[in-house]
Amino acid sequence: MDKYKNLTRNFERGIINLNPIQRGGILPVEARKAVYEFWDGYSVCDYCGGRLDEISTPPICEFLEDFSKFVNLDISRPTHGAREGKFIVMHSICNEGDYVVVDGNAHYTTYVSAERARLNVVEVESEGYPTFRINPEKYKEVIDNLEDKGKNIGLILLTHVDGNYGNVSDAKKVGKIAKEKGYPFLLNCAYSVGRMPVDGKKLNADFIVASGHKSMAASGPCGVLAFRDEFAEKILKTSSKFPVKEIEMLGCTSRGLPIVTLMASFPHVVERVKRWDEEVKKARYVVEELEKIGFKQLGVKPKEHDLTKFETPVLDEIAKKDKRRGFFFYEELKKRGIGGIKRGVTKEIKMSVYGLTWEQVEYVVNAIKEIVETHK
Amino acid sequence: MDKYKNLTRNFERGIINLNPIQRGGILPVEARKAVYEFWDGYSVCDYCGGRLDEISTPPICEFLEDFSKFVNLDISRPTHGAREGKFIVMHSICNEGDYVVVDGNAHYTTYVSAERARLNVVEVESEGYPTFRINPEKYKEVIDNLEDKGKNIGLILLTHVDGNYGNVSDAKKVGKIAKEKGYPFLLNCAYSVGRMPVDGKKLNADFIVASGHKSMAASGPCGVLAFRDEFAEKILKTSSKFPVKEIEMLGCTSRGLPIVTLMASFPHVVERVKRWDEEVKKARYVVEELEKIGFKQLGVKPKEHDLTKFETPVLDEIAKKDKRRGFFFYEELKKRGIGGIKRGVTKEIKMSVYGLTWEQVEYVVNAIKEIVETHK
Repeated sequence: MDKYKNLTRNFERGIINLNPIQRGGILPVEARKAVYEFWDGYSVCDYCGGRLDEISTPPICEFLEDFSKFVNLDISRPTHGAREGKFIVMHSICNEGDYVVVDGNAHYTTYVSAERARLNVVEVESEGYPTFRINPEKYKEVIDNLEDKGKNIGLILLTHVDGNYGNVSDAKKVGKIAKEKGYPFLLNCAYSVGRMPVDGKKLNADFIVASGHKSMAASGPCGVLAFRDEFAEKILKTSSKFPVKEIEMLGCTSRGLPIVTLMASFPHVVERVKRWDEEVKKARYVVEELEKIGFKQLGVKPKEHDLTKFETPVLDEIAKKDKRRGFFFYEELKKRGIGGIKRGVTKEIKMSVYGLTWEQVEYVVNAIKEIVETHK
Repeated sequence: MDKYKNLTRNFERGIINLNPIQRGGILPVEARKAVYEFWDGYSVCDYCGGRLDEISTPPICEFLEDFSKFVNLDISRPTHGAREGKFIVMHSICNEGDYVVVDGNAHYTTYVSAERARLNVVEVESEGYPTFRINPEKYKEVIDNLEDKGKNIGLILLTHVDGNYGNVSDAKKVGKIAKEKGYPFLLNCAYSVGRMPVDGKKLNADFIVASGHKSMAASGPCGVLAFRDEFAEKILKTSSKFPVKEIEMLGCTSRGLPIVTLMASFPHVVERVKRWDEEVKKARYVVEELEKIGFKQLGVKPKEHDLTKFETPVLDEIAKKDKRRGFFFYEELKKRGIGGIKRGVTKEIKMSVYGLTWEQVEYVVNAIKEIVETHK
């Protein structure tokens, strides 16, 4: 039992974490303070009248209204995360066997959610190497093709910003195509809401799933599902025996600490998305500097998001002669207080400097340059 | 935005909380320490190779093995809580339209999970007022009746300890009946695992769902689903496109802080269940003392669990003449540093002194006696 008695994160507190899935989930001080108050099990339920989303102390109810305004949709519900939000939508608005049209850069959880909901998935392929861009017009082709075959389409899904290349998809156009064809449109905003401004109605989205732990400075697991009024009946259907309890939420979802951190971080998040241009500048600076030493940015150019993937033949060359093999890069970064790059990987790396100060960004860039230049 | 900036729990830290859903979810110091390390979003995923349940730093993988031994079943997976565990089992092993046989004291989430999984629910009624006891033999009757009608039974479910009366059901007998009839048997241990010893195989359970936030001293939302090997294929089925990802888990479930608190609290929980007899003694003491002032314990007597429901006609009488009406009891308790009893309710109350010291238990009992005696 001793191994559980002092659980520490081997990932030191002071380290600069370049892992894109982690940079948007770092708690600001307001959220850390709230943790002390709410860390016990059912701590958000002290003043509950039967529904998580209606609790006013802490102000979950108001938060959901504010969140709906933040992403410009009508109704919001807490979830355990973006994947759980996708499953809720698929399970409540589609029928078993329906087709879901998704982009070729979709996260694995999109497929898994569809499989759990017993739906078929059809991909709209990206343009492939090196941009991996999703062409909205291709959605039209795929939809037409399914219609010609007499398939029943239940949902059109687009990954707003994908987790491989950090491409920002043209949601507005895909949403317009879905609308014209008469299909509901879900936008997976796990990497966008909380990092950058997202306007659901402007982007023609019927549903938005957001991730607290990925991009809203919250403790995991937590997310929000926002949607248009017209889908309320299906998504919020209540139990026949317990009319106050929403079936797809299994009554309540995020009944504890994570939603408190999500709320406590909300003012910080609302402010930070206003500085999105600055974050994009940082990402472009990183690309510009690291391409000088032989890295090659994949995905759409110039960057429109912090998540950046590089092909790194220069690291691969060094790995061939360094006695630490592929681990040299990880080890050398660690010496310099930098983490979050996968151990042993040298062909391609994914990174983000989201939320770092310019001074830290320069430190990271210079550290990487130094490692490459002294080892090649 | 200011309302989110200083989220404090109006429920003061020093208060004695008698709410049964909260007493088992209070974090011990080891878990609180771990919180500081892991509060950021995806903090458990630093050293992940693709599957939450296989992460070894922190030791999630070992924890799940230890948990399986703790409840004496074969395989365990983290969940977001007991209700999510029930849905996973129902959705993966039953077919749409199947019948689930449940006890009349089942938690609302049992019904909602079945509704979400599109199953039918048939109740085995309790013996009603005042014991509300579940007679295992009645399960046989209900099953026979369904079989006679040619209905397909997918699952037998029993609430090990119910949330209304704190009755400990005879799981072993119900499990035996299920086994003899050839149906899988799920035991809802939200109020038992982590509070009292539970031996899955001895109780003939095929599946156990446990709740971290309710009874395992963890931050919510978090739980564990444990089950026998023979159900692994269905429950752990992986995605056709992403063969490492389990469909019913949507890949990963408790990907953040809650599972860390669950693990950090585990040694504490393992120790505390050994002192279960003492907890039952406390509950019986509370009943004995409060029945002296006109409370009447509902549910099976003598108590075998800490969750206790009282009929309280004496409080109701006072409420009729006190100018605070039903709120006098809540207010008077609050003055004495005691919380967790529903505001305004005087006909019946639910309470638990689980985990309190004997000194605190006596303080609570004396406070209630004093309130009743000075106001009646």
